[in-house]
Amino acid sequence: MSKEIHFNGFEMNTVSHINHGLWVHPDNRRHEYTDIEYWTETAQLLERGLFDAIFLADVVGTYDVYRGSRGPAVERGLQVPNNDPYLLVPAMAAVTRNLGFAVTFSTTYEPPFGNARRLSTLDHLTKGRVAWNVVTGYLPDAARNFGLPAHIKHDDRYDIAEEYLDVSYKLWEGSWDDGAVVRDRERRVYTETDGVHEIGHAGRFFTVDGPHLSEPSLQRTPVIYQAGSSERGKDFAARHAEAVFVSSRTVQRVAADVRDLRERAEAAGRGRDAVKALASLNIVLGETEAEVARKVEEVVRLRDVEGHLVHFGGSSGIDVASLETDEYLQYVGRDHAQSMEAEFATGAGRKRAHELIDALADPRNDEFFIAGTPEQVADRIEEIVDATDVDGFNIVQFLSPGTFTDVVELLVPELQKRGRYRTAYSESERTLRERLFPGNGPLLPATHPGAAYRGAFRREEITV
Amino acid sequence: MSKEIHFNGFEMNTVSHINHGLWVHPDNRRHEYTDIEYWTETAQLLERGLFDAIFLADVVGTYDVYRGSRGPAVERGLQVPNNDPYLLVPAMAAVTRNLGFAVTFSTTYEPPFGNARRLSTLDHLTKGRVAWNVVTGYLPDAARNFGLPAHIKHDDRYDIAEEYLDVSYKLWEGSWDDGAVVRDRERRVYTETDGVHEIGHAGRFFTVDGPHLSEPSLQRTPVIYQAGSSERGKDFAARHAEAVFVSSRTVQRVAADVRDLRERAEAAGRGRDAVKALASLNIVLGETEAEVARKVEEVVRLRDVEGHLVHFGGSSGIDVASLETDEYLQYVGRDHAQSMEAEFATGAGRKRAHELIDALADPRNDEFFIAGTPEQVADRIEEIVDATDVDGFNIVQFLSPGTFTDVVELLVPELQKRGRYRTAYSESERTLRERLFPGNGPLLPATHPGAAYRGAFRREEITV
Repeated sequence: MSKEIHFNGFEMNTVSHINHGLWVHPDNRRHEYTDIEYWTETAQLLERGLFDAIFLADVVGTYDVYRGSRGPAVERGLQVPNNDPYLLVPAMAAVTRNLGFAVTFSTTYEPPFGNARRLSTLDHLTKGRVAWNVVTGYLPDAARNFGLPAHIKHDDRYDIAEEYLDVSYKLWEGSWDDGAVVRDRERRVYTETDGVHEIGHAGRFFTVDGPHLSEPSLQRTPVIYQAGSSERGKDFAARHAEAVFVSSRTVQRVAADVRDLRERAEAAGRGRDAVKALASLNIVLGETEAEVARKVEEVVRLRDVEGHLVHFGGSSGIDVASLETDEYLQYVGRDHAQSMEAEFATGAGRKRAHELIDALADPRNDEFFIAGTPEQVADRIEEIVDATDVDGFNIVQFLSPGTFTDVVELLVPELQKRGRYRTAYSESERTLRERLFPGNGPLLPATHPGAAYRGAFRREEITV
Repeated sequence: MSKEIHFNGFEMNTVSHINHGLWVHPDNRRHEYTDIEYWTETAQLLERGLFDAIFLADVVGTYDVYRGSRGPAVERGLQVPNNDPYLLVPAMAAVTRNLGFAVTFSTTYEPPFGNARRLSTLDHLTKGRVAWNVVTGYLPDAARNFGLPAHIKHDDRYDIAEEYLDVSYKLWEGSWDDGAVVRDRERRVYTETDGVHEIGHAGRFFTVDGPHLSEPSLQRTPVIYQAGSSERGKDFAARHAEAVFVSSRTVQRVAADVRDLRERAEAAGRGRDAVKALASLNIVLGETEAEVARKVEEVVRLRDVEGHLVHFGGSSGIDVASLETDEYLQYVGRDHAQSMEAEFATGAGRKRAHELIDALADPRNDEFFIAGTPEQVADRIEEIVDATDVDGFNIVQFLSPGTFTDVVELLVPELQKRGRYRTAYSESERTLRERLFPGNGPLLPATHPGAAYRGAFRREEITV
C-alpha cells in the first residue's frame, strides 16, 4: 500500500502557538503575526508546497492554571495576545487559488446564525476552500469574556455543539434550494422566492428562524474538522467530522485512534473512509546530518519548558507548579482535559511531575518529532503512515516560516519522488472537500447528517 | 472658504444595495458580489481615486414590511442574499496601502468581546485603516435569527449600544498599557504582565472580565462611524461618533443636520470639528451632456419603484401596498424609523401614498442626485458643501463599478484642479483616523469618552 499523504500547515494568529520559547530565535518571524504579509506569504508558500490547507487554531481565553495565574502565559506570548483566525482567510485567499483554509471556532460562546453567515461568506470568497474546525472551548476564563456565569461542563458543551451544528446545517443545506438563485435579468428576478425557506429552529439552546442570509456557496457546508478525544468527543467526530486531528503522541496509540475513528464512522453509517485522520508532526529538516544536528540543538536549547507546563496546565487543568517533583499527576476531570481522559484511564497518564517535566523538556521525546535529511524524514513518515493508517499531517512550525520552507523545498520533492504526494493540484476539482475526497463533488455526501436537511423546509407555511 | 472634500465609497456585500433594479443592467457587476475579485478591484479603484474609505453597510435580517412578506425583497436581491462585511476587509487590505474600511456591525445581536477582537484584528491587518459603523439594527426579523424573543425597542437598543461601546472601549483602551508589549528576546519576555489588565465589566447587559486578547493596534479603537437620526441616535452620535452619515435628502435639512451635529458634539465637550459629517450622494457623470442624458435615462428606466417601496417599508415600518393611493402615510414609531421621526414631527413626512411613490420613482427628485459633466457635478458639489458644511460624501453606485470609475476618472481630477480634493495620500499619516483628522495622531482624542479608560484598570487586584 502506498497512499498519498496530505499536509496541512498548522498555525495560529498568535505569537507562541505550540513550540514555546522559539519566538526569540533571530530567524523566527512569529512576532509578525499581526502583519498581513506574514499570512499572505505563508499561504503562498504552502500553496507552492501543494498543501491541502492551512489549519488555524484558536482560543478565546488565556492559560491560567499554571501557578494559578495567566501571568506566565502573557509574559511568553503563549497564545496571548491572539487575534481572530477567520479574518486571515480572505487575505490569504486573495493571493492563492488552491490552498484550503481550516478555521477554528467554538460553539460555546457566540450564536450560530452569525457564524454560519461568516463561514458561507468565506466559502464564497475562497470559491469553496473553507473548513470549520469545530471546538467547544476548554479554557475556563473564556466563558467569563462572553457573560457566561461559569465554565460550561464538558458534556453540556457537546450538547450545545450538537444543536449548534444542527442549526448550521439547516441554514447551509436546507434554507436555499438548488436553483433558487436564477439571476434572471429579463424577468428582473434574482431569486425565486419559493426556493428560499425559513428553518424555524426552536431547540433547547437556540431559536433561529432564518432564512439563511447567504445564497449557497460552492460547498454549502464547509468541510468539518474536529479534534475530540474524549468518548463524547470521538462520537461527535465520527458523526460530523470529515477530517479529524488525532492528538495521541505515540505511533501505537495513533494507530489505535485511527482504527477507532474508522470504526465509529462506520457505526455512524458513514463508512470507514468518510473521515480523514490527521496527526500533528514536528519536523526538523536539513540537507546534511550536520545541519540537522545544528537545528535540533537550537530547538532544544531555546525550548521553554515552563511554557510547555503553562500550555499543559490550560489543557489538562493540572498545575504542575503546585506538585512536588515526585508527586503523581491527578486527573482533574473532563472539563479541562483533551486527551487526558483516555491517558489516565489506561494508566498511560500516570506520571510523576518530574517525569512530565522531563518529557516536555525535549521535543525528541515525542514520537511525532522527526529530524533528518529529506530521505530520512520521508522514510519515517512513510513508516508512520503505514503503521497508523493516518491520511496526513498537521505540520507544526519551530521557526516561522522556516519550517514550512524546509518542508516545501526539501521534503515535498522527496515524497513526490516516492509517489506519496501530489505533484499538482487538480484543476477540475478546486474545492477543499474535493481535495480530500476526489470524485465526490463539492457537497457533503448523502451519508452525512447535514445532508438530511436538503429539501427539508420545502413546506408552504415557512417559505417566504 | 474652500475646504477639502472627502469621499467614501458606499457599498454592501449584497446584490441590490440602494439603487434598486439596476442590477439587471448589462454593465453592472453587482451580482459578482460573492467574488473576491469584485472587492479587490473595487478597493484598488477607490485607492486610485484617493478615497478615504470604502463604507460597507450591513443588515442581518430581511425587509418584510411591504405586502407583509419578505418575498418582494428576496425576488429582487434587495439586500438579500447578503454576506458578512468584515470578511471583505482583509482581502481588500491585501491589495491596498491607504484606503480605509468602515464596516457596519450591530450592537444588538452578538456579544461585544468577539466583536472587539475582530475589529482589533482588522486594525492590525490593515495597519490602522479601520472604522466601525455602529448600528443598532432596525429589521425586526433579525432578532429572530439570534434567539431574541422579539425585536428590541428603539430606546432599549440604544441602552445596549451605550454599554456595548463602553465594554469595547475598556478592552481597546484600558486593557493593555502602552509599552506592555516589549518583545524582549534577551529576557524572553513578549509582554510585561503588569501592563495587561482585566476590565472586570459587570453591567446591565454584559459581563466581560477580559483581558482583551489582542495587543494594541495602531488606532486601538477603530474610527467610530454612526448614522443615528432619532433624538436618541443624534445624542449617541454626538457622544461617540467621529464620522456621521446624515440621512436627510434636501440641502436645507442636511445643513440643519450638520449644524445640529456640531452643536451636540460641542455640548458633549468634544468640539464642533470632532465629527466629520458625510452625506450620501448619487452621481451620474459623462464627458458630454448627451452622454449624461443617456445614462440618466437608463437609470430612470431601470429603476425599480416597487423595490424602493420594499426598502422604504423595512426602514419606516410603513407598508405602502396596504394604503389607498391618496391615503396619508402614518408614522408607526421609532422601532422602525430611521429619519422618519423628525420628518413626521415637522410635517415634512406628511405625504399621501402616491406622492411618496412619485418621489421614489425618479432619482432626480433627490437633491443629492447630481448628473452632469465633471464641471457641472463639481460646481454642484461645491455649492452643497458650502451650503451645508458637510465634510464629504458617501458615493452610491448606480452601476458597479461604473459609477466609482466615473468618479475616480472624471470627477476627482476636476475637484483636484479646484483645490477641493487631495492630490495624494499622506505618506506619514497612514491610519484612517489621521486621514480624517490630520495632525492628531492615530488614537482617539482625549475628549472622546473612550479615552477615559486609558490606565483605568492599572490596579493591582485585576492585573494579571
